[in-house]
Amino acid sequence: MHVGIVMGSDSDLPAMKKAFEILDGFGVTYDVAIASAHRTPKKLAEFVAAEEEKGAGAFIAGAGMAAALPGVVASLTLRPVIGVPLSGAKLDGMDALFSIVQMPSGIPVATVAIDGTKNAAFLAIEIGAVSDRELYRKYKEYREEAAAEIYRKDEKLQKELGR
Amino acid sequence: MHVGIVMGSDSDLPAMKKAFEILDGFGVTYDVAIASAHRTPKKLAEFVAAEEEKGAGAFIAGAGMAAALPGVVASLTLRPVIGVPLSGAKLDGMDALFSIVQMPSGIPVATVAIDGTKNAAFLAIEIGAVSDRELYRKYKEYREEAAAEIYRKDEKLQKELGR
Amino acid sequence: MHVGIVMGSDSDLPAMKKAFEILDGFGVTYDVAIASAHRTPKKLAEFVAAEEEKGAGAFIAGAGMAAALPGVVASLTLRPVIGVPLSGAKLDGMDALFSIVQMPSGIPVATVAIDGTKNAAFLAIEIGAVSDRELYRKYKEYREEAAAEIYRKDEKLQKELGR
Amino acid sequence: MHVGIVMGSDSDLPAMKKAFEILDGFGVTYDVAIASAHRTPKKLAEFVAAEEEKGAGAFIAGAGMAAALPGVVASLTLRPVIGVPLSGAKLDGMDALFSIVQMPSGIPVATVAIDGTKNAAFLAIEIGAVSDRELYRKYKEYREEAAAEIYRKDEKLQKELGR
Amino acid sequence: MHVGIVMGSDSDLPAMKKAFEILDGFGVTYDVAIASAHRTPKKLAEFVAAEEEKGAGAFIAGAGMAAALPGVVASLTLRPVIGVPLSGAKLDGMDALFSIVQMPSGIPVATVAIDGTKNAAFLAIEIGAVSDRELYRKYKEYREEAAAEIYRKDEKLQKELGR
Amino acid sequence: MHVGIVMGSDSDLPAMKKAFEILDGFGVTYDVAIASAHRTPKKLAEFVAAEEEKGAGAFIAGAGMAAALPGVVASLTLRPVIGVPLSGAKLDGMDALFSIVQMPSGIPVATVAIDGTKNAAFLAIEIGAVSDRELYRKYKEYREEAAAEIYRKDEKLQKELGR
Amino acid sequence: MHVGIVMGSDSDLPAMKKAFEILDGFGVTYDVAIASAHRTPKKLAEFVAAEEEKGAGAFIAGAGMAAALPGVVASLTLRPVIGVPLSGAKLDGMDALFSIVQMPSGIPVATVAIDGTKNAAFLAIEIGAVSDRELYRKYKEYREEAAAEIYRKDEKLQKELGR
Amino acid sequence: MHVGIVMGSDSDLPAMKKAFEILDGFGVTYDVAIASAHRTPKKLAEFVAAEEEKGAGAFIAGAGMAAALPGVVASLTLRPVIGVPLSGAKLDGMDALFSIVQMPSGIPVATVAIDGTKNAAFLAIEIGAVSDRELYRKYKEYREEAAAEIYRKDEKLQKELGR
Repeated sequence: MHVGIVMGSDSDLPAMKKAFEILDGFGVTYDVAIASAHRTPKKLAEFVAAEEEKGAGAFIAGAGMAAALPGVVASLTLRPVIGVPLSGAKLDGMDALFSIVQMPSGIPVATVAIDGTKNAAFLAIEIGAVSDRELYRKYKEYREEAAAEIYRKDEKLQKELGR
Repeated sequence: MHVGIVMGSDSDLPAMKKAFEILDGFGVTYDVAIASAHRTPKKLAEFVAAEEEKGAGAFIAGAGMAAALPGVVASLTLRPVIGVPLSGAKLDGMDALFSIVQMPSGIPVATVAIDGTKNAAFLAIEIGAVSDRELYRKYKEYREEAAAEIYRKDEKLQKELGR
Repeated sequence: MHVGIVMGSDSDLPAMKKAFEILDGFGVTYDVAIASAHRTPKKLAEFVAAEEEKGAGAFIAGAGMAAALPGVVASLTLRPVIGVPLSGAKLDGMDALFSIVQMPSGIPVATVAIDGTKNAAFLAIEIGAVSDRELYRKYKEYREEAAAEIYRKDEKLQKELGR
Repeated sequence: MHVGIVMGSDSDLPAMKKAFEILDGFGVTYDVAIASAHRTPKKLAEFVAAEEEKGAGAFIAGAGMAAALPGVVASLTLRPVIGVPLSGAKLDGMDALFSIVQMPSGIPVATVAIDGTKNAAFLAIEIGAVSDRELYRKYKEYREEAAAEIYRKDEKLQKELGR
Repeated sequence: MHVGIVMGSDSDLPAMKKAFEILDGFGVTYDVAIASAHRTPKKLAEFVAAEEEKGAGAFIAGAGMAAALPGVVASLTLRPVIGVPLSGAKLDGMDALFSIVQMPSGIPVATVAIDGTKNAAFLAIEIGAVSDRELYRKYKEYREEAAAEIYRKDEKLQKELGR
Repeated sequence: MHVGIVMGSDSDLPAMKKAFEILDGFGVTYDVAIASAHRTPKKLAEFVAAEEEKGAGAFIAGAGMAAALPGVVASLTLRPVIGVPLSGAKLDGMDALFSIVQMPSGIPVATVAIDGTKNAAFLAIEIGAVSDRELYRKYKEYREEAAAEIYRKDEKLQKELGR
Repeated sequence: MHVGIVMGSDSDLPAMKKAFEILDGFGVTYDVAIASAHRTPKKLAEFVAAEEEKGAGAFIAGAGMAAALPGVVASLTLRPVIGVPLSGAKLDGMDALFSIVQMPSGIPVATVAIDGTKNAAFLAIEIGAVSDRELYRKYKEYREEAAAEIYRKDEKLQKELGR
Repeated sequence: MHVGIVMGSDSDLPAMKKAFEILDGFGVTYDVAIASAHRTPKKLAEFVAAEEEKGAGAFIAGAGMAAALPGVVASLTLRPVIGVPLSGAKLDGMDALFSIVQMPSGIPVATVAIDGTKNAAFLAIEIGAVSDRELYRKYKEYREEAAAEIYRKDEKLQKELGR
């Protein structure tokens, strides 16, 4: 699985980096670009085309405010595009959420939670795992481990409460 | 003054037509296109370029939901772009409002009210009137007439109330 | 490509049927179930398991109000789950949108627009097309046809406007 | 009276602890579990069953974002379930509020204020007090004391204002 | 189990009647009063006291707009008070929801969905069933029947789809 | 002019004190009470009655969250009641705003801005000044001085900008 | 008591007329004007001045959308100004509510509910009744009658329910 | 190009200054005034008239809360008025946004993002550039430079990622 990740501004980098770590952990390769739907549409189109060429199975696009980026990426590719509404400005990211999720029919964007960069990565992994058994196996392990972690946290809590 | 008007879908036509009538009334010429930021970006870019060629002094772009159209028009031209958030879907047009008004720095969109197509036309007229005395004169007349209309309505009300 | 479609109530059927037609048009097979996360969790789990067995590459789950269904489906499978917030009750579907999109890290739901059942189908097709060239080809055709449709509508408009 | 308290993540513990103190003060016993509706549904079901076995008269479930936990608990038991929408993420807990309060007919969740953990405890006490006179007496005392506290604060204010 | 039901205006009656039918079906007795927190506070207090005298195990209070009624009932009794935010005016009942659910610490109101009168009845039944085995048994039957109903609807759907 | 000021909790005191200073500056007398609509309704009724006895021409009531206090004061008196929605909890005071402003017909509350304690005082002064020429004169002076202050600030700005 | 009533457009007349009837019923005199803060500011200023001359003790201003009218009236007079947010356009009147209630310090507007024209009249009556015993007496009668009406409606309900 | 900039309070100065720098950079002259729509309407009218005299091609008006200022400026001039909703108070500037953007037909305000002072300046430049080739040229340079900046930031990112 290969994923193209794009953000409109370098100020979105700290939020988006959380996706990098998860993808690294699953051996999913990815390229990252700063490219704006409004200021550098050509660069954006070139990145999307290059990533398709490299076999990208999905794109992740993060943006804040009037977040046009995920929708524009979705217009440039037929691969699934995962949109991450980023907060940071006023309105708690509700503007970005509406701008990303309310796409018109025919050009879907798979939207995750406000600042939900991690889930964007997990969704990309799920998409890749549809046809990649090894990735599926790793992801299953992760989900089991995440469940086990909750068991451990609960045990710790029971001890703290003296039960 | 010449204005380029664009909407993403023919379902937006009834709302946008209110702008046509106003511009006609002021002798402002305009072209209209259905062109989607997501589905026909090339057509959109060609329309914007052709309108610039024709001397368009402003663009009006109306869109609903995740309304990327006005922002994408603004990325294609340096002329002022007036964005009209259209309701119609759920959320009363608040999604379109946020998607249009919350533009990032450097690519402004002059946003008017939800379904405020008429004001989009008036704003285009104001922009044209900055350097067109005749248009300014006509617009001044309109504003005086609009005020006079309120006086007449008030007189009618006073009669109704028997005063 | 095979898709499992689930809704919590038969009152959601008219909204969800729009997805059936699209999937039919692309030769994507699907099963449909009415199964509630709250009232028939066992039935839901059985449907999800049976669909996985049948090779489902994605799930579509539509729900309104405190729409737990898509998230619960996502907890039952590692396949991508597409959530459709349905309006119908008060609040214009904003409650369903928040209940579906704001998933915690580790259990993503690919959320589409309020009442965006069509885009749920298109997103499922995109996911299937990642590893299915024939489906990709058909979807590409559809997108080109959708663009062509806009050209035709614009031509019709130009005629109406006498240009 | 015995109450089962559940939260989806250990990060919810500081908010939920406010309920522990109140229940302790009234001699109401309780067990606490970290169990996720999405990641450890089996653990959740086992906890609910075990608490019912122990005679739990009510459940308290606190969750943030797309807060499915209270609704899922309500689907696992016929005891009253009190849902606490937790803030913490973006949107001020409004997402959690909608996800908890907007339950479909047949599976009610008794929802309290955003971060209203204390009132969740008081509501559990009220439910227990319906059939427990001693608990009713203690709760009545508490309410009288809470009123008396306001009288004392007002007296202090009058002194400060020199009246 | 006996329940006191109160609404501020006779215009709330159609919405509230849905609770009557459910309670009737479970053999739960109830009295109903129109009594306003603002206009007839004395009548309200008398009704609450009389219902307590009759052994009311819970109250249901429905109100719209600045819905003070449930909170005022909660200040008059130590029995659990279930608040139903009613829509009808503008704002889709969001004003009533906030006015009911955001109670200060010490005076809880168990809030259900906007127009969620049915769930108010079910919640009252759950509260009564904590100490009433027969009511518990009936409610269990209802929940099983509600689940069975979903199975039947799903079967009907499968036939319609020809599967 | 005499004003009765009431708040539900001593935590509202810092916000409410801004009204004291303004009333002091205009020679308007006032009493202040901490009295809760929910916890000490009798105390609240006694305070309102005592203030009426003292000739209170208006009441100011500040409250947060499900802010029932101003409405309940309005039900206890026929004097104008000014409601101040207080923020502090989550939701930025929007819950308090809706709970105060959306009063049913017949029991009005004169609502000011979120945390608008100063304007509550000014509104009380305006109400008093309707029949008190001296107060009117002082308030007129204040408004002129407030305007003059803006002139001075503008002059300072012009100097800073070197104009 | 004399009241000046102003609205920005004749389309607001049906909503505003509800205030006329109430004022008529209490023998409160009033003048009505259609005058826009934006289109006929001179007319607005003249009306306000004339009403002050006539002894207006309060103003009622109703407006929708970006409802500047009540605030501008408040800048033209020192009499209490009652603002009525009118719905009608999109957003359910929430835009008008925010535009009216969120006034800056020093220029208060006494805001009532969305479409709360009746309460605007009652608030004007309360303001007049501060110094007019006869008006106070009539208003007291009205409030008692309104309470009695609730008693009658409740009696009717009890009969319907056969109690 | 000459621009008139106005704000209602000196507390808005830090936000508005961002526009000064941009206009300075493009050689666009401007005057700045503190003038309140509510407290110093005469000063505001004089400033607008003086700026028109000086040849102002557009106005920028920034305001928070019930932000009447941009609309009132628009009622005083026929030049395009750019409104900037300022946050700062509660509600994240959503109140100011609605108060500015939802203008009635005939008096448009070109609204930019919440705290979008920079885009207000850019929009003024665009309006001026409609009839000023030199300004157009400079603005085009700026937009190219802004795009180039994104290319540079992307290069830096690629280095950081070691690609």
